[in-house]
Amino acid sequence: MINVGVIGFGYWGPNLVRNFSASGRTNMVAVCDLDPKRLAVAARSYPAIRTTTDVKELLAAGDIDAVAISTPVQHHFELAMAALKAGKHVLVEKPMASTAEECRLLIEEAARRKLTLMVDHTFIYTPAVQKMRDLVQSGELGEVYYYDSVRVNLGLFQHDVNVLWDLAVHDLSIIEYVLGQVPVAVSATGISHVPGAPENIAYMTLFFDSSTIAHVNVNWLAPVKVRQTLVSGSKKMVVFNELEPSEKIKVYDKGIVLNDDQEQINKLIAGYRTGDMWAPQLAGTEALAAEVSHFADCIENGTTPLTDGVMGFNVVKVLEAASRSLAERGASMPVER
Amino acid sequence: MINVGVIGFGYWGPNLVRNFSASGRTNMVAVCDLDPKRLAVAARSYPAIRTTTDVKELLAAGDIDAVAISTPVQHHFELAMAALKAGKHVLVEKPMASTAEECRLLIEEAARRKLTLMVDHTFIYTPAVQKMRDLVQSGELGEVYYYDSVRVNLGLFQHDVNVLWDLAVHDLSIIEYVLGQVPVAVSATGISHVPGAPENIAYMTLFFDSSTIAHVNVNWLAPVKVRQTLVSGSKKMVVFNELEPSEKIKVYDKGIVLNDDQEQINKLIAGYRTGDMWAPQLAGTEALAAEVSHFADCIENGTTPLTDGVMGFNVVKVLEAASRSLAERGASMPVER
Amino acid sequence: MINVGVIGFGYWGPNLVRNFSASGRTNMVAVCDLDPKRLAVAARSYPAIRTTTDVKELLAAGDIDAVAISTPVQHHFELAMAALKAGKHVLVEKPMASTAEECRLLIEEAARRKLTLMVDHTFIYTPAVQKMRDLVQSGELGEVYYYDSVRVNLGLFQHDVNVLWDLAVHDLSIIEYVLGQVPVAVSATGISHVPGAPENIAYMTLFFDSSTIAHVNVNWLAPVKVRQTLVSGSKKMVVFNELEPSEKIKVYDKGIVLNDDQEQINKLIAGYRTGDMWAPQLAGTEALAAEVSHFADCIENGTTPLTDGVMGFNVVKVLEAASRSLAERGASMPVER
Amino acid sequence: MINVGVIGFGYWGPNLVRNFSASGRTNMVAVCDLDPKRLAVAARSYPAIRTTTDVKELLAAGDIDAVAISTPVQHHFELAMAALKAGKHVLVEKPMASTAEECRLLIEEAARRKLTLMVDHTFIYTPAVQKMRDLVQSGELGEVYYYDSVRVNLGLFQHDVNVLWDLAVHDLSIIEYVLGQVPVAVSATGISHVPGAPENIAYMTLFFDSSTIAHVNVNWLAPVKVRQTLVSGSKKMVVFNELEPSEKIKVYDKGIVLNDDQEQINKLIAGYRTGDMWAPQLAGTEALAAEVSHFADCIENGTTPLTDGVMGFNVVKVLEAASRSLAERGASMPVER
Repeated sequence: MINVGVIGFGYWGPNLVRNFSASGRTNMVAVCDLDPKRLAVAARSYPAIRTTTDVKELLAAGDIDAVAISTPVQHHFELAMAALKAGKHVLVEKPMASTAEECRLLIEEAARRKLTLMVDHTFIYTPAVQKMRDLVQSGELGEVYYYDSVRVNLGLFQHDVNVLWDLAVHDLSIIEYVLGQVPVAVSATGISHVPGAPENIAYMTLFFDSSTIAHVNVNWLAPVKVRQTLVSGSKKMVVFNELEPSEKIKVYDKGIVLNDDQEQINKLIAGYRTGDMWAPQLAGTEALAAEVSHFADCIENGTTPLTDGVMGFNVVKVLEAASRSLAERGASMPVER
Repeated sequence: MINVGVIGFGYWGPNLVRNFSASGRTNMVAVCDLDPKRLAVAARSYPAIRTTTDVKELLAAGDIDAVAISTPVQHHFELAMAALKAGKHVLVEKPMASTAEECRLLIEEAARRKLTLMVDHTFIYTPAVQKMRDLVQSGELGEVYYYDSVRVNLGLFQHDVNVLWDLAVHDLSIIEYVLGQVPVAVSATGISHVPGAPENIAYMTLFFDSSTIAHVNVNWLAPVKVRQTLVSGSKKMVVFNELEPSEKIKVYDKGIVLNDDQEQINKLIAGYRTGDMWAPQLAGTEALAAEVSHFADCIENGTTPLTDGVMGFNVVKVLEAASRSLAERGASMPVER
Repeated sequence: MINVGVIGFGYWGPNLVRNFSASGRTNMVAVCDLDPKRLAVAARSYPAIRTTTDVKELLAAGDIDAVAISTPVQHHFELAMAALKAGKHVLVEKPMASTAEECRLLIEEAARRKLTLMVDHTFIYTPAVQKMRDLVQSGELGEVYYYDSVRVNLGLFQHDVNVLWDLAVHDLSIIEYVLGQVPVAVSATGISHVPGAPENIAYMTLFFDSSTIAHVNVNWLAPVKVRQTLVSGSKKMVVFNELEPSEKIKVYDKGIVLNDDQEQINKLIAGYRTGDMWAPQLAGTEALAAEVSHFADCIENGTTPLTDGVMGFNVVKVLEAASRSLAERGASMPVER
Repeated sequence: MINVGVIGFGYWGPNLVRNFSASGRTNMVAVCDLDPKRLAVAARSYPAIRTTTDVKELLAAGDIDAVAISTPVQHHFELAMAALKAGKHVLVEKPMASTAEECRLLIEEAARRKLTLMVDHTFIYTPAVQKMRDLVQSGELGEVYYYDSVRVNLGLFQHDVNVLWDLAVHDLSIIEYVLGQVPVAVSATGISHVPGAPENIAYMTLFFDSSTIAHVNVNWLAPVKVRQTLVSGSKKMVVFNELEPSEKIKVYDKGIVLNDDQEQINKLIAGYRTGDMWAPQLAGTEALAAEVSHFADCIENGTTPLTDGVMGFNVVKVLEAASRSLAERGASMPVER
């Protein structure tokens, strides 16, 4: 049993606490939050867990093996570094830190101390993303032509980072995991509708060394929440709609038609769909439960997490390049190797 | 009754002929196509219409008042110019011509001869687009924050122009008509998956003098046809799904929330939708029928078409700038005034 | 080439005329309707076709081989009988006639004269219904447990027959064709909301000699048109949604679970779907085109139509029993053999 | 604070315990289940709650004010009666008991002892059902023409009661609450596909003293879970789709068309939808939380619950009549007053 402390009990923290509690592999010991009202909520639901507003107290606790950090991104580096220095294994919310340099320092510190450093890119642990990875890596999709994602939230804006750091961060980890490729350049455009505030709507194109292209459409201004991802290959195409209750993954059994028979082209233009469609049944497992269990495995066996510091680092490097491109209205920026 | 000749009887030409025949305002006189097999198809359905493979014959005919041109884009300029010079009113397929300069020359020629020059931006005549214009121009949507469109076709590619010229052309006319704004700069990215062929997938961001931003996502590589457009304002938002049989237009009765109440924000993050939704019943009229009737009006009264040469010209100017940006991986290009 | 006359040019007649014209197998010769305005519409679209308000003239014409009857049901018997007696092959709208006895007389007359008698149960010729038949008859679905259909029209009522005769008639032919079974008893319930008018909403349960059960839900009072049919078997289940543009047929790759593992049952109760789903691509052919061609085949080769007089007869026998049950608030009525 | 004991910790019990725990109005004291493994699950999640396999122990406990019974229906009567006799207020799962007579005895016992007796017809407490009731009771829908519900579960069967008792029970309470009418007669049909087992598929038509008709379609054999209810009136119609994440309630702004203009009728036949559609935003509250709070109110103030014993009694009377009709293949049975 690994004893866990959670720092931050805002929007996501309660999910971490619930899963660390329910997992047979970990033991929830303490929760830290600056807001006593949030701590009171935690105490009411989990009377056996210690609560504190003092992060030092939590990090000093001898009965805590691992720490999960679920705070605003600007505190990730400081808290994760302190936790590593206190000898704790770390699971940190995404994005891993505010800069690529901070990510690099965390990776080095964890390596030096032989501690597990994992980033909470939760989507990687969903049955749907795993199915997409299988389809791509097995070659079933053929050559991947493009990755296209729409990830928009209901109309609100009040954030300290731009919308790419809040939402596109999911796609960057999925792209690395599913495609097995990292982008070499990025073009991003967007706008802020509140003077002085970061961009609340953004579009990002990723270029690779291959002929794959990826595009991510994110904003906080939508009337309806959308979470839709498409991976299109020369043989098959797959659509992942996270909000569809019963058909999250649809596989279209046909790739691209290269054909100059005008009648067949006209039929395609007038049609609605190509090929048979197949929607595999997916396991109903909660991704975070699988992730918590994987975190425990990595700590116990010293193995590298699927969503390790390097993935977190890669994601932040792209976000940095995208923010530079955003400031230049789409001018392509290389992603640092 | 206006007597009409149609040049080109491929994919779209038959729709023109059908509507010119059925309209009480126009009279279908002759069809021209280089392919005798296509002419045979026309003759079988419309025994009373003359057919010819010789465009000169059609343009020389004294009993033809107006000509509709439905050929590949590279022939638009030459055919439209010849028709104007032969004294015919002209309805030309979109995009209006291969270059902005050609558009300018056609506008001048039509003006000099006092002939009607109209571009077949059919969408402008749909009840759905007209409803969107009403919602924006009446102020019901408030300040427009963004226009976002996905317009993708089933997986085929075999085209002589890039996908922006084939599909984004629709959005450019809709944006001008619905928003009443023309873009000042454009950033476009995309890729071709066939060596030597034009881009089959592209993404385009449009910048305006206001704080509106527009984005268009087009490709010929999709497993499912999509035609979805969103216009989002400070007060309301509207979604137009052309392929939805019964709810093409949905109006969301709520704009953007500027609020720092963390609980309300968490509720929005977890929610699926904001505000009431309202789907107005739309007339079932075929857009092309309305367009053909409007063409006849403009000829008879000498009035300016909704989709006149200037709109066609504006659209082509953006397409030219977008193609330049595409070649520079997204670097922003000004749109010529 | 078979020369065809069409009687009745109201809602459905124009579709018949269009398909008889376009088919390479038949030749549209004449149209008869009592309303000169409808005949004018026909003449405008098809200048080469003769029109008449006098059915006797049409039946007497020596250049007509076959007649299609598309009038209100109360005239079917009289017109079809007159056509047969005039030596014409007959395609009659569904339901075949107002009573089972009339159907029997028509079958006998056609047999005596060796003429083709076919009922226009169009659905039988759709790729979707043919796919359902294949799935059932090949045994892929296993033992058929139930057939369930919802077929409701937008809120209007103004009919001379009850809604079962107008809408359930489709299901009765589909059931016979797809399941290969005819019902032995029927229970029907319903109501009329207009004093003196026939039922505008009805529910019908069909019993068979097997353990299959069928149910049909029809009305003219719906806010949204629905056309959904489910055939559920011990191995697989199939859903046919006629109005879905791209996924008309969905096959669920799993049958019924007979299991007393309470945890698996709880999972099913909480779940949304069982097994993989597969949506085969269907041909885009218009059913009526296939039907017209099949009618020509049957006439030329003297073969029995898929939708012959016997199917029409069986359908009317069930409708008669159902109307009797309706009057008794659901009391089960045997279907005459 | 009302102290609560829960009997039965199977599929639904955990939801009761969670809501009694989270409510500020009630205090979870003890859980009883015959299965020690289920009790272990309860103890792990709620270390502060007492557990027992002995229902007598729970009923004898002096610190328990109210008991919630969540067991198979055959035990409802015995347990609820014992609880009332022990002086406890009672919340019992639906259906209230196995027979109408048992319901009557429970109502009398509760009345005699002035204890609150409430049936857990949870749907009554959902924002969607409350919205439907408002629409009907305010007259906004006009005269109600019909109620139509499809409520089918994934393909499993393993039950000790027939499917009407398991699923139609929901509709019977919704009908009474939303329409404010109770049925006077019922016709039901159905079948069992397992020899000796109760019906796993059933159809039920309800007749009222008005011209309203209601129909409920239930089974445990569906490939996809469906929860759809329609209430159609002379002025408007409302569709409730419980599984739709963002548009649970759709109101169609148009009633029935009584019109003999054939062209308008043809347009309706060819159309997909009538009138504007409006989807009100609904509160996201969990029904069971509202219900638990209402239970506490009723106990504290001695007021009558929305879902009191009389509603439970009425529901069971219809179920009894429906079961009799089922055995007679649809013959209409009166519902006992």
